[in-house]
Amino acid sequence: MMHDVEVPFRVRYSETDAMGVAYHAHYLSWFELGRTEWIRVHFAPYREFEARGLLLPLTASSVRYVRAARYDDALIVRARLSAFGPLRLTFVYAVRRADDGVIIAEGETHHAWVDRAFRPRPLSKAWPEAYARLSALSEGGDTTRRRSRA
Amino acid sequence: MMHDVEVPFRVRYSETDAMGVAYHAHYLSWFELGRTEWIRVHFAPYREFEARGLLLPLTASSVRYVRAARYDDALIVRARLSAFGPLRLTFVYAVRRADDGVIIAEGETHHAWVDRAFRPRPLSKAWPEAYARLSALSEGGDTTRRRSRA
Amino acid sequence: MMHDVEVPFRVRYSETDAMGVAYHAHYLSWFELGRTEWIRVHFAPYREFEARGLLLPLTASSVRYVRAARYDDALIVRARLSAFGPLRLTFVYAVRRADDGVIIAEGETHHAWVDRAFRPRPLSKAWPEAYARLSALSEGGDTTRRRSRA
Amino acid sequence: MMHDVEVPFRVRYSETDAMGVAYHAHYLSWFELGRTEWIRVHFAPYREFEARGLLLPLTASSVRYVRAARYDDALIVRARLSAFGPLRLTFVYAVRRADDGVIIAEGETHHAWVDRAFRPRPLSKAWPEAYARLSALSEGGDTTRRRSRA
Repeated sequence: MMHDVEVPFRVRYSETDAMGVAYHAHYLSWFELGRTEWIRVHFAPYREFEARGLLLPLTASSVRYVRAARYDDALIVRARLSAFGPLRLTFVYAVRRADDGVIIAEGETHHAWVDRAFRPRPLSKAWPEAYARLSALSEGGDTTRRRSRA
Repeated sequence: MMHDVEVPFRVRYSETDAMGVAYHAHYLSWFELGRTEWIRVHFAPYREFEARGLLLPLTASSVRYVRAARYDDALIVRARLSAFGPLRLTFVYAVRRADDGVIIAEGETHHAWVDRAFRPRPLSKAWPEAYARLSALSEGGDTTRRRSRA
Repeated sequence: MMHDVEVPFRVRYSETDAMGVAYHAHYLSWFELGRTEWIRVHFAPYREFEARGLLLPLTASSVRYVRAARYDDALIVRARLSAFGPLRLTFVYAVRRADDGVIIAEGETHHAWVDRAFRPRPLSKAWPEAYARLSALSEGGDTTRRRSRA
Repeated sequence: MMHDVEVPFRVRYSETDAMGVAYHAHYLSWFELGRTEWIRVHFAPYREFEARGLLLPLTASSVRYVRAARYDDALIVRARLSAFGPLRLTFVYAVRRADDGVIIAEGETHHAWVDRAFRPRPLSKAWPEAYARLSALSEGGDTTRRRSRA
């Protein structure tokens, strides 16, 4: 939990749909707000990865929509790295309302490091310092699992 | 398979991102293209449901991204109703390239019928004819399972 | 100038396109960030207008794209009410980079007050207090025109 | 008028907003549907330009919103090249309803040819065949101006 990053934001009008609530696809870009800040806070801006020719596309995503969110609702997305390896990593997310903490949605995104041609490119080889740093965080951060092993 | 609906479309420039490929959140709106046509073909335009105060928001979604799609790629989304009850239903989807049939993505969306205030509203009560029709399709369409029972 | 409102934000990855820059349509939703805060700061959250059945759709928009913006760029949108009447109003906007102040884009949006059926609905009749307040701001804020009259 | 290109499409649910109508920013991506087909029909797919390192970003856009469009409305966007030079060009658009021809919106987009670094790159030098072809279309298509000269 120590390594969670939280980002506050408001639902934009452009994100609503004819049901009067936030359209479901935008939750994935809210997750990205959290992921972007997680990477920035813990190592470096994600665009420095892309500047080195390293992309981090999604291989899978899932979202559980718990309650509707409306225009101008003040929300908070919390992101956390939950699995990490040389080639693949997973982030988990929770979105909740800022005022009462009610959960709006939860989900996860799975990613793989690739080069500009979308060929697999292990972070451990492409940017060893980044790999070492994130790897250390990953181990230190997964306190739940470490405890359960003891 | 008989009840699958397929919709051809092209990747819009507005759907690409700085990786040069279609941004992952838009896959959910491509799924919606398939879902919209599935409902239209098999019963009535979805907006007739909303005109009766019946909304069908997502309760969950998942996407598996298999290969990247690029601007102007000609794709086909195939949608199919895979689970159906008075209150909940599930659609499954596959997106493939039109020219060579290569799979781009697969996924599913889970839905619940609600009223304008987002309270659960069983379709069986709110619009019995729609429920009867979709229910019949749901049973008849699952030909794979029927065969495996024989 | 006194009544300008500024909102800082970062370019989201979801807002980029295959040129590697922010897609042009999203500038209109950035303008909306500014407009939303302008209304909130000067009178009340926009959603209180909608709660009274008053909508403020666009009748026209224009954008001048000066320089490209990239993923994660820290930008600031400045919004200002530039014309105001019982039925119509206009906002003008400028988007610039936070670090060096370079202008990214400028533009304006024209709006009309309508009811839920999109029939014209003068604010002066529908919500006189809001009309009086915004009208006063409009006069006080248009310092350029006042000076040219002298 | 001879060189106009029309593209039919339906309003996606993802394009609606909490007013129950299509969100104004998406009109720019509808214009792009028309522009994409115009270029394809009259010379070559736009992505062949990008494959040669030629990008065509917007320098300005304007939209006049005439009537609201709703989810699933069948619309047609008509695109036409209205001004053309070595470095700059302009497209004009009209969006109307397919069933009754009612105008939904009109607008225009202004563009400049640039290279991957967003430096000006005249089409006449970068791809002379494309310039010659589009230039010929531009002259032949501008029937209004030719008539007024007579």
